Amino acid sequence: MRLKNIPGAHDTLIAHPQFVVMDPAVYKGKWKELFQNNQPIHIEIGMGRGQFIHTLAKQNPHINYIGIEKMSSVLYEALLKVKNESLPNLYLIRMNVENITDIFAKGEVKRIYANFSDPWPKNRQAKRRLTHHKNLRRYEEILPFEGEFFFKTDNRILFEFSLNELLNEEWKVRNVTFDLHHSTFSEENVLTEYEVKFSSKGYPIYSLEANMIKE
Amino acid sequence: MRLKNIPGAHDTLIAHPQFVVMDPAVYKGKWKELFQNNQPIHIEIGMGRGQFIHTLAKQNPHINYIGIEKMSSVLYEALLKVKNESLPNLYLIRMNVENITDIFAKGEVKRIYANFSDPWPKNRQAKRRLTHHKNLRRYEEILPFEGEFFFKTDNRILFEFSLNELLNEEWKVRNVTFDLHHSTFSEENVLTEYEVKFSSKGYPIYSLEANMIKE
Repeated sequence: MRLKNIPGAHDTLIAHPQFVVMDPAVYKGKWKELFQNNQPIHIEIGMGRGQFIHTLAKQNPHINYIGIEKMSSVLYEALLKVKNESLPNLYLIRMNVENITDIFAKGEVKRIYANFSDPWPKNRQAKRRLTHHKNLRRYEEILPFEGEFFFKTDNRILFEFSLNELLNEEWKVRNVTFDLHHSTFSEENVLTEYEVKFSSKGYPIYSLEANMIKE
Repeated sequence: MRLKNIPGAHDTLIAHPQFVVMDPAVYKGKWKELFQNNQPIHIEIGMGRGQFIHTLAKQNPHINYIGIEKMSSVLYEALLKVKNESLPNLYLIRMNVENITDIFAKGEVKRIYANFSDPWPKNRQAKRRLTHHKNLRRYEEILPFEGEFFFKTDNRILFEFSLNELLNEEWKVRNVTFDLHHSTFSEENVLTEYEVKFSSKGYPIYSLEANMIKE
């Protein structure tokens, strides 16, 4: 984990083992032992600065959360936000999505959140989208039957792509909205940093939920 | 069938039995006998002036088409467009969607089109939407397993409603696009009268396909 531009950042990550798991692969199949309870585990892939998962962890003490971020420098910012709190149901890890099956065992994660992920607009970049079927198949390997995937974005083209990928892969899609903040689902919605900025301009947020229903 | 405002319209409808079926319920389970062949039957619910189904009937002589319209005066206009042609694979009928199961037997219709149908925007009018689950259940009664439903609209709220109704009713949805004319599906798209007018203004057309997969 390199943090060239932030002096002391690496040491700060190491100094907070109550939040940052530096060697997450060690816990594959054993996350319950780390949390020391049997609560369901929800993860967010691409948590950014962590406002979303931090809010959820405070709201729902009976759910365990793991925030995942591929950039160490961003993970460090997420840590700064929470490091003085006591949140035994939240861990943060650095990881690329391609490695997710090295970190979690089958059925270990009950719900996956992906919020405002990079649209990778060029066709040759499609595989990097968090909802590309190659990634969806990775999620199948860590979710139980009927495990959940919650997705929101402001990018209409990414949303259309994601919806079709999920349908083609035979996920059970539900609660689709093309304007989350004016929908019936808005009450329970927890905002991300990006969402606050973006939706204040009046643009719609697209959102869906899906269940993995392959045995 | 009353046509108060169009003198002679009723007589014109009756005078064209090669296109207009005045007593469609007689043919329930027997449409193949009327067409005198075993070709698949595709119907359009709410055909309006019929440009869409008329174009399809000319393009695809090996498919039988039935255009359905609830307004006699509009049916009459659709007839005027085709009456001097020879199209043995096209019939037109007047019908309300609530009566569709009186007209077609189980499995008799292979594909249903619904294009730019009335959005009925008020909640208390929801049942009248062609994609309300009460209507979707009617379609289940006339389609075979994997029978198709093709839907397009310019109305975002109707599209969102329709997509969720189909998903909730466990139809297999595919090829969803939020901008049909700029999608990969646009090549095969046959335009309706309304679509020509509307899309010339640059607004997007929403479109989806679905298969009925209840046994």
